[in-house]
Amino acid sequence: MLLNGKELSTKIKDDLRIHIRNKAYDNPPGLGVIIVGDRKDSLTYVKMKKRVCEQMGIISKTIHLSENSSTNNVISAVDIFNTDDSIHGILIQLPLPEHVDEEMVLTQVDINKDVDGFHSSNIGNLAMDKREPLFTPCTPLGCIRLLDEYKIELQGKNAVVIGKSNIVGLPISLMLMKRNATVTVCHIFTEDLKSIVQKADILVSACGQAQMVKGDWLKEGVVVVDIGISHIPDPEDPDKTIIVGDVDFEEAKEKASYITPVPGGVGPMTIAMLMENTISAYEKLKF
Amino acid sequence: MLLNGKELSTKIKDDLRIHIRNKAYDNPPGLGVIIVGDRKDSLTYVKMKKRVCEQMGIISKTIHLSENSSTNNVISAVDIFNTDDSIHGILIQLPLPEHVDEEMVLTQVDINKDVDGFHSSNIGNLAMDKREPLFTPCTPLGCIRLLDEYKIELQGKNAVVIGKSNIVGLPISLMLMKRNATVTVCHIFTEDLKSIVQKADILVSACGQAQMVKGDWLKEGVVVVDIGISHIPDPEDPDKTIIVGDVDFEEAKEKASYITPVPGGVGPMTIAMLMENTISAYEKLKF
Repeated sequence: MLLNGKELSTKIKDDLRIHIRNKAYDNPPGLGVIIVGDRKDSLTYVKMKKRVCEQMGIISKTIHLSENSSTNNVISAVDIFNTDDSIHGILIQLPLPEHVDEEMVLTQVDINKDVDGFHSSNIGNLAMDKREPLFTPCTPLGCIRLLDEYKIELQGKNAVVIGKSNIVGLPISLMLMKRNATVTVCHIFTEDLKSIVQKADILVSACGQAQMVKGDWLKEGVVVVDIGISHIPDPEDPDKTIIVGDVDFEEAKEKASYITPVPGGVGPMTIAMLMENTISAYEKLKF
Repeated sequence: MLLNGKELSTKIKDDLRIHIRNKAYDNPPGLGVIIVGDRKDSLTYVKMKKRVCEQMGIISKTIHLSENSSTNNVISAVDIFNTDDSIHGILIQLPLPEHVDEEMVLTQVDINKDVDGFHSSNIGNLAMDKREPLFTPCTPLGCIRLLDEYKIELQGKNAVVIGKSNIVGLPISLMLMKRNATVTVCHIFTEDLKSIVQKADILVSACGQAQMVKGDWLKEGVVVVDIGISHIPDPEDPDKTIIVGDVDFEEAKEKASYITPVPGGVGPMTIAMLMENTISAYEKLKF
């Protein structure tokens, strides 16, 4: 059965749009977007996010810096949004160019505008029992909302997470722990990954390796959440590329009880959660 | 082979004492200790910590509140130490009585005096790759230092942590992840714990269940770090109690390549790390 992120995200966005319209705020919520360089995928994501903002009734402002910007240049852009009263959430499109100190930039974001949830205090509160972050990172939050929508039990389940990046693998692991799953966090140094994945009741993959997880890696009935996004040559037209996840979907769908498609699974949920976080930031600041 | 925390902690404390003596600071480092109620074990720990402070050349002040103190009373005590210039580290002896909101109290500690490392921002920075907390919780830090002392490789190893408490299980899991172990976090909702533990190259137990982990739960050559402290009747004198860990030591030592004794393993390391964190807090504030 498909975990249909496209459908759920549309419903969430519809609800948010109606919420904003009904509130009839004097000033609209505002999202500040910072993008550095001209990565094609990043430009596409930013464009999508801006378009969804418009649909929601959220204003968006973009600061587009050149590829060779310094860490200080990017921090200055963050400061502009930090002090701009019309901006309630700040999104820094990742990855930043390698020469920019990503951590230094991310920690500069005003915690009250940290709609990406990457502030150390937000991550700490996400990790700790009986504490709640102001904001939860959008992609992990989207995964959990999708699992909840399909009433998938997490408590006591063996959850295997592939990848431990600050922005996806780590926070989703922390969220699954908080929901009382038994969580195993795997990564580039993990030995015999296949046999670990074979024990998973819930598999969350965020390693960016196209179709790495094969059907025989999966237990019958597993729930698969695929966060990977890779471009590979289209087998039907070598001049084109197609988008695939970390999991070989055709093989996995024979084993899984639930599975996210790529695209149309976690991706659209991420944007919906960004909208939700932005509106939440606005309402926290305002009231 | 024993992971001798008593020996290593003595060496660390000796080094710290010499360090402080050589620096000949005008004012000594100061540790503020808050204890609520009269739990016998807590009183013992506080007494031990104060005695070690004295040996180090660290002054210590104690606020001892009665069992029926409110959350606000405890927070007021924290504020006294927050604003006391002679105090550089604050230790709140846990657990607090059930009616006191522990999280509210812990988050009140000035981050610069958070020698227990429980501030959300410290936990967030502990969790995240490429970030460093100001302070790391003492018990998990003591475990890692002990493993490092015996040159036990963590990267790529299967590490199983039993317990996910904010103060021990969670932070040690985060530290093992950061060191590139493949970490499985188990807890009260985990099913078939024994078979998970059987895969562990490194087992860290912090669940407080006396001698729960038996010899047949362990893989040959496993490294066992036992953080549990339980009092059970002395089999040789039923009027007395003895201290044991979460792991059945007599059985486990036949399987383990390295194992911490209880007592004399992690316990003394915790106090040594508290001293180190307090001196570090002092030097950070001073310089």
